[in-house]
Parts: sequence; structure tokens; C-alpha cells
Amino acid sequence: MLSVSYVGEQRLEVKEYEPKPPAAGEVQIAVAYNGLCGTDMHILHGNMDARVQLPLTFGHEMSGTISALGNGVDGWNVGDHVTVMPLWWDNTCPACLAGNQHICQNLDFIGIDSPGALQGKWNVPAETLVALPPELRLDHAALVEPAAVAVHDVRRSGLVPGDKAVIIGGGPIGVLIASVAREFGAEVAVIEIDAGRRAQIEALGFTTISPLEVDQVAWVNEWTADAGADVVFEVSGAAAAVLGATDLAKVRGTLVVVAIHPTPREINLQRVFWRELTIMGARVYQRTDFEKAIELIDSGVIPAELLITRIVPLSQTSEAFADLAAGKAMKILVDVAGQK
Amino acid sequence: MLSVSYVGEQRLEVKEYEPKPPAAGEVQIAVAYNGLCGTDMHILHGNMDARVQLPLTFGHEMSGTISALGNGVDGWNVGDHVTVMPLWWDNTCPACLAGNQHICQNLDFIGIDSPGALQGKWNVPAETLVALPPELRLDHAALVEPAAVAVHDVRRSGLVPGDKAVIIGGGPIGVLIASVAREFGAEVAVIEIDAGRRAQIEALGFTTISPLEVDQVAWVNEWTADAGADVVFEVSGAAAAVLGATDLAKVRGTLVVVAIHPTPREINLQRVFWRELTIMGARVYQRTDFEKAIELIDSGVIPAELLITRIVPLSQTSEAFADLAAGKAMKILVDVAGQK
Ligand SMILES: [Zn+2]
Ligand SMILES: [Zn+2]
Repeated sequence: MLSVSYVGEQRLEVKEYEPKPPAAGEVQIAVAYNGLCGTDMHILHGNMDARVQLPLTFGHEMSGTISALGNGVDGWNVGDHVTVMPLWWDNTCPACLAGNQHICQNLDFIGIDSPGALQGKWNVPAETLVALPPELRLDHAALVEPAAVAVHDVRRSGLVPGDKAVIIGGGPIGVLIASVAREFGAEVAVIEIDAGRRAQIEALGFTTISPLEVDQVAWVNEWTADAGADVVFEVSGAAAAVLGATDLAKVRGTLVVVAIHPTPREINLQRVFWRELTIMGARVYQRTDFEKAIELIDSGVIPAELLITRIVPLSQTSEAFADLAAGKAMKILVDVAGQK
Repeated sequence: MLSVSYVGEQRLEVKEYEPKPPAAGEVQIAVAYNGLCGTDMHILHGNMDARVQLPLTFGHEMSGTISALGNGVDGWNVGDHVTVMPLWWDNTCPACLAGNQHICQNLDFIGIDSPGALQGKWNVPAETLVALPPELRLDHAALVEPAAVAVHDVRRSGLVPGDKAVIIGGGPIGVLIASVAREFGAEVAVIEIDAGRRAQIEALGFTTISPLEVDQVAWVNEWTADAGADVVFEVSGAAAAVLGATDLAKVRGTLVVVAIHPTPREINLQRVFWRELTIMGARVYQRTDFEKAIELIDSGVIPAELLITRIVPLSQTSEAFADLAAGKAMKILVDVAGQK
């Protein structure tokens, strides 16, 4: 079997390994596809060296088929199509005891803090499995995890039908949020600098704004009859976007911080105060978000086909990351089952 | 009659003026007391010269007695004890139409954007009046407006009985928030740098933390059994306080921005994301906050007597501001009725 590991110094290695049988309570999954995401890229670029243990077989946006059951696993069968909600919590910390297991204070994010899906046979705790409908294509199903992020973000935002939502940043998560927000009844506008991305996003039926060509505040004010947007999603990760985001929101509007901001960012607190804005963090997902994401992909609401730029063999994982880093692709899947 | 006006160049002027009778829909108030606050100090220091029209008779924390009724005013009588909710909205902007009149997009803050209470006879729209109980001392009643701010802040925070709340900054608003939060059922700790203020706050029965002597994060973690505070109120206005505030809050905890931050502040968005924190702005008050504030002062829950450092004649308004700027007083009232 082949796996892809980050071995440090910004290098990946594709190598042979001997799969282990699943331990008690685990299942073994024959991984079909694994999507590459921004977090994986952070790992590859060495930004998370302080957190990860090397070598790290990473990957957490996946689909596959159960290939073996460990002792004591009930309710699953070999051959079932599944994806994995890659969170493992301790059930004892204050966050868990308050019902927020998904952001457990000692969370193990599988694929970062423990081995991930870029391997032919992957063992995971049975509790992390999420069933896929048999008819859902396994390549499309590799988008369930990022789609669950988007569902979680939109749910957290409190968005209601008729709301106007602005999404800053039209990468994969931004487009997924746009799709979910539209399905939840919002009118959506996406702010994106890159003209190529804007064209892709418009092809999905969304309005886009080029912030370098248009005064985004004036645009949003006109769009909302001088009220401002009900919800703003900050997905770009850019300092300037954060600073400007508060100017886009209505009185008592909400700004959801989706992107990772590794260093503190300047925020216009005068505006937060003046308009009684709410800024909220949204991180990963809960099981209900995974289930909704599957439903939205299965029904075609989330345009999986259009979001997947291409599918590459394991041996081209490095090149795929280079394309992602250069903004040349929306989503690239690795064909793990192909094993070449 | 005497009034106190800001005349520009960081100067106040006490001068004679001829009161006008109240216009239709207005009442004339014989002002009893007027408290001096941070916003007034900003005006005096010239920080709001771009907003205010000179000369400005300012003041908005007041109590008084109705001295005359304009045409068409119903439901009020000469001699009634009143305070004023100093907000005047347009009822037509998107914020008003959404029910958020108190933060109308074209709000007139009476005492800043139009003449305030530092004058013997003051005319205001009858709709801004709030009745005071006859037994409530008029000096104590001058604290209703800042107490209403505190009630609004606590209501906005979503604080529930049993919560642990940290208040950063132990000035008048911080102490009022502490009093209201305790009354709403929270355990409260106040972070305050100044030792004299800490002693005053402890005398009111609150726990205080000296952030220069104690590791505030470790302290809060121990206090909350490693959970973090349910609610953090940022009342200090200090950049360092904002940057550190997010480290004090529990998973899904709330940080309320009460202080004015005239320039953008660095915020640890990584922490906001990681713990799914909520940051919310809270500005002024709604009528229900005024009514609750009156109840809390009348019942002694808010220790008005202990918060009022002293009462000065009109002629000593400048000196009073100097003491406030030097941190030598909690709250100073001007005896407007005394007219000297
Ligand atoms: Zn936990
Ligand atoms: Zn309005």
C-alpha cells in the first residue's frame, strides 16, 4: 500500500507501508479520494511544524469504503460507503462537558494530530464514521468535509431566509459558504480579487465584487438600501479584509471569522461598538453539519462537479499543492484508491 | 440662568443665558444634577471637535424636575421628577425600521449633537423623559444614565445566573457593570491596574485582579476550573486589554466591547476562531435599560452613594474634569440647580 507523508523541510514522501488491521472499536477504510486543503498546505509549508509529529500521513477530506471491522464495532458493514468526521475529543474538558465536543480543549484533529487519509487503508474509530448514500459518487463525497465547514459557518451566523450575505474570499470554502447560504435563503455576493476565480464563481450564479475595481462599501450600501449586509463571512485570511469587513455589516449585523489568522489583526472596534456588531468565530463542524453537507452534495445544491478542478494520482500530490498555492485550482482530489 | 459650554480649544465657559419656553411637544426641566463622564471629557479635550457644534452646552447624565410643559404634551406634570434618555432617532433609517432605534443610523445624541443638561432650564422632547420614583434622591438619580449603559451591556452579553464574568477596567462604567452582573446572578472579578480603585471596588464586595502583579489568564483559569470566563467586558479602552481579553473567555464565551476604541485594535482572531468566541459591541441603551437602572438605584443594588465622589458647583466644572482625567474621582456630579 502507498501513503503520502509530510516528512519535514517542506517535503512530501510517497512510500510503501504495511497496513495494520483495525484495533477494537476501529474500522479500516479503503480510502477512495482525498481532497487537499489549505490546512494541508500549511502543514506542507512547515507552518505547523510545532504541532505535528513527523512523519505525518495527513489528509482529512476523504471518501472510501469499509474494508474491515475491528472487534466490537456494530452497525457497519464491509463495503459501506463512508466519510470521516476527523475529530476526536476527550469528553472530560469544560468545553466537552458544556456540549461543545467539536471544539474540545484537547481536540485531536485526525489528519493533523494523528494519521490521516492519504493512505490506501486507514484505521479510524468507528464513532468518527458518517454514512454516505450508496448513489453518491465517491469523488463528490470527498467534498463533504469542507462542505460541512460551510454548513457550520452558515448555521453559526444565524442567517435567515431573505438575508443578504457578503463572502470575502472566493476560494473553495468561500464558494461552499456561498452555496449553502443561498440554499438557506440568502442573497449572496462574493468579494474576490482574482478575475479567474470571479468568473468561476459567476458561472455558479453568484454576484461577485472586485474590491480593487469597485468601492465595496458603496456597493454593499447600494445593494442593501443603505442598511449594510446582514452577515459577512471573512474567508480570505487577509488583514485588510478584516479591517474593512466591519464597514460592510448592518446595525446588529454579524461577521463570521472563518479564515485562519495566525497573527492578531486590526479590527475597527469603533464600528463594532457603533453598530452593535457581532463578530463570531466558527471552527470545524458538528455531526449535523456533516449530515446536511452530504444532503446538499447528494442533491446537487453544492456543485461538486464544478468545484473539483481535477483528480491526480498519489505520485502527483506535490505538484497539486504547487498549483493550489499558485491559485491555479479550486479543489484537487488525490485518487488514493488508484495507488500510483 | 447659568450654563456650562464647551467653547473650543479645550476650554469651558460658565455663562448667563435666557431660557426659552418649551416648544410644542417639549418639556422644560429644572436640572438638578448632572454627572460628568468620559464622553464629556473627550469633548472637552477636543477629541470630538469634528462632530460637535460650538459653543456646545453639554451634559447628558442628569436628574431634574419638570418646570414647564410645551403645547400638546400629555401625561406629565410640572414638578415631576425625571431623567432623560438622551437619544433622538429618525424612525426612518434601516436600523430604526428593524427596531434598533437606539442605534439609529442618524442618531442625535442629546448633549453631544444638540444641547445638553449643564444649564438651569433645559428643553427636551417629551418622548425622551423617563419618570423617577418620587422617593429617589435626585443626586443618586443622576447615575441612571450610566447605570442604563451597564444594564444594556449586561443584557447584550447574554449573561445568565451562575456565570463567571470578568470586567476589564474598574472605572464608573466597569463598577456599574459589576453591580448589574452580580445582581443578574453572576460571579464577578474586576481587572484594574490602579490600587486605589481596586480598594474602592473591593469595598463594594467585588474580587479584583491587578494585572501587573498577577497572571490574569492563569488566575481566570484557576477561578473557572480551566474553562475560562463566560463573559468578558472590555471597559478599559486599552489596546493591550483588548489583545489579552480573548485569552480570558471560555469556549463559546462572549467578549463585550463597551469602551470606545478610537483607532483599530489588534484582536487575537486565532483565539476567536479556535474557541468559537463571540465579540459584540454594546452601545447606549433602550428604554427598558433605563427603567431597570432606576429600579436598581432605587433599591440600593447600585451603590450610588459610594460611586459619587463629590458634588461641585457649576463654577468648578473644569476642576472636576481635571480630577477625573487624573483618576482622582469615580463620579463627580455638578449641582446645576445651585446655579453658582
Ligand atoms: Zn474536551
Ligand atoms: Zn434611524
